[in-house]
Amino acid sequence: MRLALIGCGLIGASAAWSMRLAGVVDSVVAYNRHFEGAQKAVELGIADKAVYTIREAVEGADAVLVAVPVKVMYKIFAQVANFLGPKAYVTDVGSVRGSVVADAREAFAEAFPRYCPVHPIAGGEKMGIDAARADLFNGANAICTPLPETDPQAVQLWEHLWAATGSNIIRMSVAEHDSIFASVSHLPHVLSYALVDMVCDMPDSERRLALTGGGFRDFTRIAASSPVMWRDICLANREQLLENIDLYMEKLNVLRQAVADSDAARMDAIFTRAATVRRNQVYKIK
Amino acid sequence: MRLALIGCGLIGASAAWSMRLAGVVDSVVAYNRHFEGAQKAVELGIADKAVYTIREAVEGADAVLVAVPVKVMYKIFAQVANFLGPKAYVTDVGSVRGSVVADAREAFAEAFPRYCPVHPIAGGEKMGIDAARADLFNGANAICTPLPETDPQAVQLWEHLWAATGSNIIRMSVAEHDSIFASVSHLPHVLSYALVDMVCDMPDSERRLALTGGGFRDFTRIAASSPVMWRDICLANREQLLENIDLYMEKLNVLRQAVADSDAARMDAIFTRAATVRRNQVYKIK
Repeated sequence: MRLALIGCGLIGASAAWSMRLAGVVDSVVAYNRHFEGAQKAVELGIADKAVYTIREAVEGADAVLVAVPVKVMYKIFAQVANFLGPKAYVTDVGSVRGSVVADAREAFAEAFPRYCPVHPIAGGEKMGIDAARADLFNGANAICTPLPETDPQAVQLWEHLWAATGSNIIRMSVAEHDSIFASVSHLPHVLSYALVDMVCDMPDSERRLALTGGGFRDFTRIAASSPVMWRDICLANREQLLENIDLYMEKLNVLRQAVADSDAARMDAIFTRAATVRRNQVYKIK
Repeated sequence: MRLALIGCGLIGASAAWSMRLAGVVDSVVAYNRHFEGAQKAVELGIADKAVYTIREAVEGADAVLVAVPVKVMYKIFAQVANFLGPKAYVTDVGSVRGSVVADAREAFAEAFPRYCPVHPIAGGEKMGIDAARADLFNGANAICTPLPETDPQAVQLWEHLWAATGSNIIRMSVAEHDSIFASVSHLPHVLSYALVDMVCDMPDSERRLALTGGGFRDFTRIAASSPVMWRDICLANREQLLENIDLYMEKLNVLRQAVADSDAARMDAIFTRAATVRRNQVYKIK
C-alpha cells in the first residue's frame, strides 16, 4: 500500500507517520507546497520520498491523503484528480464537510465514489510538521462521513487506515458533522478570538493581559490557532456557524438578564447544570 | 507571628501552608465552617490547631486571613471584628474588591485601617483543602488594593506575607481591580458557562459533548468551577460584569457580521491580531 501524502502539516504528517508505524501503509511519498516540508517528512522517517509535484506523489499511489487547508482543497483536488490511478482511493482531513465534499464531487467526478472523507478530532495551536507526533490521534475521535455514492471499499480502506492511528472511528452524515462541529469547535474558536479582540481594544490592554490567570489562558488557548485556517473554516461552514453564534447570543442574553436582575436562582441553575455536565463529561461516544 | 486562618478552602489552606513553610508565620490556628476542614489542615501540617469558633481563632492572633466565599464575607468580617486584637491585622482573598471592601469598612469600623485586601490570582476548578498546595501561588500575581485609610503597616505586613508565598505583588485601586478582573476573569467564566449551557439545551447534547476536542475542553474548563462561588462573584461585581458582557456582545456582533458578509479580510484582521497577542502574551506585569 503506497500512500501519497499531500500537505505535510501537523495533521497530514502525524497521520502518515502513525499509519506507517502501524504497518498499514508500506511507503509514503510526500508532497508539500514548500518542498522543505516534504524533505522534513523524509528526515523524520514519516515519508520515503519527497517530491516536487502533486503528479509525482499521486501517480502510482494506492491511497491519497489530502491534508491541506479547507480553502485550497478544490485546487488540490483538481490536481489530484488528474493523476489519480483507476483503482486509487482518496480522502481529506478537512474540519468542514459540506463545502469540501462539494469541491470533491466536482473535482473527482467519476472517481468521486473512491473518495471518503475522515475528519480527525485532533490538532492544536501548534502547527506544522515540527509539531507532528505519531501518537497524535491515539484515543481521539475520527469522523467518517461517507456519501450515498461512496464505494463501500473506500469507506473500509480509510476507516482501516485511520483506525490504525488509534482513532475511534465514528460515522455520521455531512450535515450532522457540520452542525456538531459548528457548535463544539468553530463557535468556541470565534468566541475565544472575540474575547482577546475585546481585551486588545481596551486602552490598558497590556496590563489586563499581564494580569490574566489560568482561566483566561485556557479559555483563549484556541485564539492562538492559525488565523487563516480558522477564517477559512468559519467561511466554509458559514451558515451553521451563524446559526450557532445567534443561539449563543440568546443564551448569553439570558445569563446577562439574570445578572442584571440579580437573579441568583436563575444563575445558579445555569451554572450548576453547566458545571455538572462539564465535570461528568466522559468524552466517549456512546 | 500567629496567623488565624478563617476558611480552609483551596486558597486559604494553600496560602497558610505556604506562609508557614516560608517561616513568615510561626503558628496557624484554623477555623472552618465544617470542623473537618480545620482538622484536615492540622493533619496536613498547615495549621497547629483546629478550633470550633471564629473567636478561638481570632483571639490572640497577630494576623487574620479570611478566605471564605465573597457572599459570606460580611457575616464573617462581623464575627472577626468582635474578637480582633487591638494590634492585629486582617485581610481577605476575595475575587471582587468593591463590595467586599464596603463590607469590611462597615464590619471593622475603627479597625478598618488594619485591613488590607490581597487577591491572589490562582485557583482552579478543583476546590477545597484536598486540592491545596504550598506552591499554588509561586510565580502568580497577587493584587494588593489598599484603601486611602489603610495603615501602611497593614499594607507592609500583608505584602510581606504574600510575597513569601512566591507571589508577584501588584498594587492597584479597588476600581481598577474590579474592572480588570471583570474582563479577564469574571466575563470568561460567564462565556464558558453560556457555551456549555447552549450545548446542553441541544436535543443531541450528549452526542455533541462526546465529540468535543481539546479546544472545547480547554474553553470550558472554567465552566467546571464552583457554580455558587462564581454566581456570588458575578453578583458582587455585577455592574462591571454587565458592562463587559455588553462590550463582548458588540465585538461578537462585529465578527458575526464579518462571517455573514464573508468578509475574509475583516476576519483575518481580527483573528490575526488575537492570535499574535495570545501567542506573545508573557503574563508578566511591566
